[in-house]
Amino acid sequence: MLLEKIECANDIKKISKEDYTQLAQEIRDFLIEKISMTGGHLGSNLGAVELTMALHLALNLPEDKIIWDVGHQSYTHKILSGRKDGFDVLRQFHGMSGFPKRKESQFDAFDTGHSSTSISAGLGLVKARDIKGEKNTIVSVIGDGSLTGGMAYEALNNAAKLDTNFIVVLNDNNMSISENVGGVSKYLNNIRTANGYQDLKEGIYNALRGTRRGNTMVNGIRRAKSSFKHLVIPGMFFEDMGITYLGPVDGHNIDEMIRVFQEAKRVKKAVLVHVITQKGKGYQPAERHPARFHGAEPFDIETGLPSHPRTVANYTDIFSTVMCKLGQRDERIVAITAAMPDGTGLKRFHNMYPNRFFDVGIAEEHAVTFAAGLAAGGLKPIVAVYSSFLQRAYDQILHDVCIQNLPVVFAIDRAGLVGSDGETHQGIFDLSYLSCIPNMHICAPKNKWELSDMLKYAVNFDGPIAIRYPRGNAYAGLREYRAPIELGCAEWIYEESDIALFAVGSMVKTAQKVRCSLKQMGVNVSLINARFVKPIDEDAVLRASHTHSLIVTMEENVASGGYGEKVLECIKAYDLDVDCINVAIPDAYVEHGNVELLKQEIGIDAQSIFERICAKLKIEPYKC
Amino acid sequence: MLLEKIECANDIKKISKEDYTQLAQEIRDFLIEKISMTGGHLGSNLGAVELTMALHLALNLPEDKIIWDVGHQSYTHKILSGRKDGFDVLRQFHGMSGFPKRKESQFDAFDTGHSSTSISAGLGLVKARDIKGEKNTIVSVIGDGSLTGGMAYEALNNAAKLDTNFIVVLNDNNMSISENVGGVSKYLNNIRTANGYQDLKEGIYNALRGTRRGNTMVNGIRRAKSSFKHLVIPGMFFEDMGITYLGPVDGHNIDEMIRVFQEAKRVKKAVLVHVITQKGKGYQPAERHPARFHGAEPFDIETGLPSHPRTVANYTDIFSTVMCKLGQRDERIVAITAAMPDGTGLKRFHNMYPNRFFDVGIAEEHAVTFAAGLAAGGLKPIVAVYSSFLQRAYDQILHDVCIQNLPVVFAIDRAGLVGSDGETHQGIFDLSYLSCIPNMHICAPKNKWELSDMLKYAVNFDGPIAIRYPRGNAYAGLREYRAPIELGCAEWIYEESDIALFAVGSMVKTAQKVRCSLKQMGVNVSLINARFVKPIDEDAVLRASHTHSLIVTMEENVASGGYGEKVLECIKAYDLDVDCINVAIPDAYVEHGNVELLKQEIGIDAQSIFERICAKLKIEPYKC
Repeated sequence: MLLEKIECANDIKKISKEDYTQLAQEIRDFLIEKISMTGGHLGSNLGAVELTMALHLALNLPEDKIIWDVGHQSYTHKILSGRKDGFDVLRQFHGMSGFPKRKESQFDAFDTGHSSTSISAGLGLVKARDIKGEKNTIVSVIGDGSLTGGMAYEALNNAAKLDTNFIVVLNDNNMSISENVGGVSKYLNNIRTANGYQDLKEGIYNALRGTRRGNTMVNGIRRAKSSFKHLVIPGMFFEDMGITYLGPVDGHNIDEMIRVFQEAKRVKKAVLVHVITQKGKGYQPAERHPARFHGAEPFDIETGLPSHPRTVANYTDIFSTVMCKLGQRDERIVAITAAMPDGTGLKRFHNMYPNRFFDVGIAEEHAVTFAAGLAAGGLKPIVAVYSSFLQRAYDQILHDVCIQNLPVVFAIDRAGLVGSDGETHQGIFDLSYLSCIPNMHICAPKNKWELSDMLKYAVNFDGPIAIRYPRGNAYAGLREYRAPIELGCAEWIYEESDIALFAVGSMVKTAQKVRCSLKQMGVNVSLINARFVKPIDEDAVLRASHTHSLIVTMEENVASGGYGEKVLECIKAYDLDVDCINVAIPDAYVEHGNVELLKQEIGIDAQSIFERICAKLKIEPYKC
Repeated sequence: MLLEKIECANDIKKISKEDYTQLAQEIRDFLIEKISMTGGHLGSNLGAVELTMALHLALNLPEDKIIWDVGHQSYTHKILSGRKDGFDVLRQFHGMSGFPKRKESQFDAFDTGHSSTSISAGLGLVKARDIKGEKNTIVSVIGDGSLTGGMAYEALNNAAKLDTNFIVVLNDNNMSISENVGGVSKYLNNIRTANGYQDLKEGIYNALRGTRRGNTMVNGIRRAKSSFKHLVIPGMFFEDMGITYLGPVDGHNIDEMIRVFQEAKRVKKAVLVHVITQKGKGYQPAERHPARFHGAEPFDIETGLPSHPRTVANYTDIFSTVMCKLGQRDERIVAITAAMPDGTGLKRFHNMYPNRFFDVGIAEEHAVTFAAGLAAGGLKPIVAVYSSFLQRAYDQILHDVCIQNLPVVFAIDRAGLVGSDGETHQGIFDLSYLSCIPNMHICAPKNKWELSDMLKYAVNFDGPIAIRYPRGNAYAGLREYRAPIELGCAEWIYEESDIALFAVGSMVKTAQKVRCSLKQMGVNVSLINARFVKPIDEDAVLRASHTHSLIVTMEENVASGGYGEKVLECIKAYDLDVDCINVAIPDAYVEHGNVELLKQEIGIDAQSIFERICAKLKIEPYKC
């Protein structure tokens, strides 16, 4: 086993050239075996094995820096920098992160998670290096998908001004960027890297010159310098901006990549190395089903099928089904996703109503203002998006949707703790960052039927409205509680006295458990499903204050700007004589791991809340 | 006077062709005269007079729609759509907005204010039109500066897929986009619009063919179709994406523009019309000093000098001066602006330390992650940005700076009410949207000396920290209160009893007036300068609760997620026996107008607060 020799960074340099292929195979086998057990990102990592090996061979880590865009393709990098033992606890609580983390390793130069940030971060490291007079090499590795994010373009636009080395590796795994140039581009690459560019240019000039018309053209071409380059150089888009383009290179040919990386290191400018890779490379199920193996659950290696097939519908499934029904009823309904037709559940809507479905690429900013335009044009747009990615479109929500009070529905999936993706993906801020925006309305369903009801309510609502729901199984309890949705109205599920639990969305299920425990202690407990976080139901708070001594708010969101603070403000505004406990996520990022464990860790699970209430009541809790 | 004949939209069509030049002159004279009195955006409007006339002549409003990117160049559009009377109260309280507003006129198709949104919004209107089977024309007018915003690129990337008409007018007023193509581009425009493109292509093929080498090239070129286009077409960047490019066109030649717009309307794709204009055209002071006349204060028409020259330093001046000093003391200090070197006051820093200053263009997302990269590289970046524009970089603050706890300083200018720019520019959300982010720290100075002290504190702080300060004159009172800045520590300015005023930043000055009024009523009043909004000074709240019956918090920010809610939460957490009033901006967008008037309108001026406290105390207020 060659892999046994890789115990720390740069150990790969001790492997002989002839063994690269075998090492690559061992890494693939290792990744497939480990991820089949823990789950994780498989396709992108299998595609980047040789690319990562070539980078580790061409660079001198940790002096040189690699910034992995998104970061889910960094598994081989983790193996080669001495972290292969971490794969047994990959993405698990207190285990190794599935993304680069500076606090995990000195070989991780910059934390990533969301798309399109690597060129900006890399450019920052480049400028810091130059100002400090250091000489290391900085490499940002970005996928072609990430290049649809406008931020990457902002960064390229700035990188183009550099007169110092900065390498951007374009890891192109679906050919979307290169299809226009295709084979010629590959052919021309040899000319280019061998300094044949100048010869070719002269050749064309000479061929054109001679006729009068030809001379006129040559003069025109001379003046249009940058235009001319496009005749003979692939990657004109990048050259046009002032960035040197090298490639395309076969991303599974280590020798070729090392040669081009060495060439790239000599360029005193920003240089883009265009590497062609295949997602899922070397594992047939992943090659065939790239979407399924992007972020995979544990699976059977032989068949590629999930080890624990899902039997219960999740909220995304419910959203998916309801959207199809709504689309049929109302032709003004249109749906938008930023590169997540599968993840958000819009694929079926796409199949049924292709003209009313828009996948805009990884471009949340555009997605939201585009939706505002659709709404201004008289349609009913639904933007389906993960909570943490909606952060990208904050100004667009505030400035383009809400000022004009446009009827855009935000279907916010993965709101709350998401689990194994960790810090960068936890959807625990949306209630706060949306609450402070005027004209915004926010609701959260307690169970699968309520998600359906809220969606139906939202598409006919005349203003911006967000529905937030968590990752994972849709709660199927409390089916009998299905009173019509009314703006700003909470739902009383149990009305008793003493303690009133006001729970938001996913926390209604938790509140039921808390109530059950308290009841067993002989305490009377009301349970109120908040339904709306903005506006909150002030009447419900007033009503509760008359017959209860303690209100407990519960939300899967940070405290600042969340639901609990609004209830507190209401208590103060009406000078109510009732005590209040706010259960919310503490003011800290929450790492990766099993959601139930995480909830215990941060004290928002049923037992912790129960104990907190008991402490307030000064009674001794039993273990339920 | 031709302008008298323009009373409503489409009246311009009654003006005879020969009179266009005179009408343009009358519009310019009108704009100069009006803006010299009210202040407003002058340069961009003088540059767009003929462009707007041509659009109104070529289009049929309001069926056809124009979306003005940023929107500050829409004055001629307002004149031509029947709003010239509004210019007497331009940007004044309850007067006409300086930006397009759907609620102001049916001829304003979409509200704008921030940059780079028009193509996204336009594309939404286009898709809505097509889905509804309508036939109107949609035009987005975007400046070359706005094209540095990544969102515009995200939108172009999507517009490129269109098989229906959508016109994007690139209003290019500083040649930055076209400098590479220059004269050839203009020359080729005639060929292009006259269908000469095909001829030219064949001509080049024929000239090349004949020699063996030439034949090889022709074959290569044939395969590299998109590359070839770049030889003969300007605007290759856009053509490359699949967008038809027309231009460049002289943006002061109405006939030529009308001809090209008519041509553009026939294209069944997204089409970009490249219009070259001159900012400030026709008024020498504005042509010479484009920055000063971008957003101008009232000025003397003869000299171009401000009618009321500034005599008092504003916060931007203080920031500017301190930055220069800090830059000298510490070579690790670097400064970043997103296209606002003048507005943020970084111009002097730029002049003194050109290598440590970065203007990244209108690209707030990149600016913040670039700063994160600089910090990860060991430098001390200061991002100087307006509060409302920082909304653009929300995810970058949360995801790229704060998860890694990187020492980036955010110098947030224009925090609070900004006045005449109105809804889109009010900086009234930053305390809320930053407060919920873990690891973030937020402070606000009471006066000019404290801004200096806080900046010095911030550049040596080991983590993300934001300093927010308002537009306008820097408060020079309370100079004697200058205790060292300590993390999370408030400053007791007057310690008495009964009422404790906890004021944030700009509200300390207001609180002094409130205190003065209350004192005259015989009430004892303490005044506490909050200094930090995150973390808040809990000890100060505890201390106040012992000797005061009422705490009044004051902030120039919306209530949700703001300072007041944090104080309230502290009162609840420690079960303090003290009443509390939270003075904050109500949950609604605040229109344009004089800041003092606006404060009265929303109840955060000294008199309103005084009366609110008196009501709480059940005493009769006198008029102070």
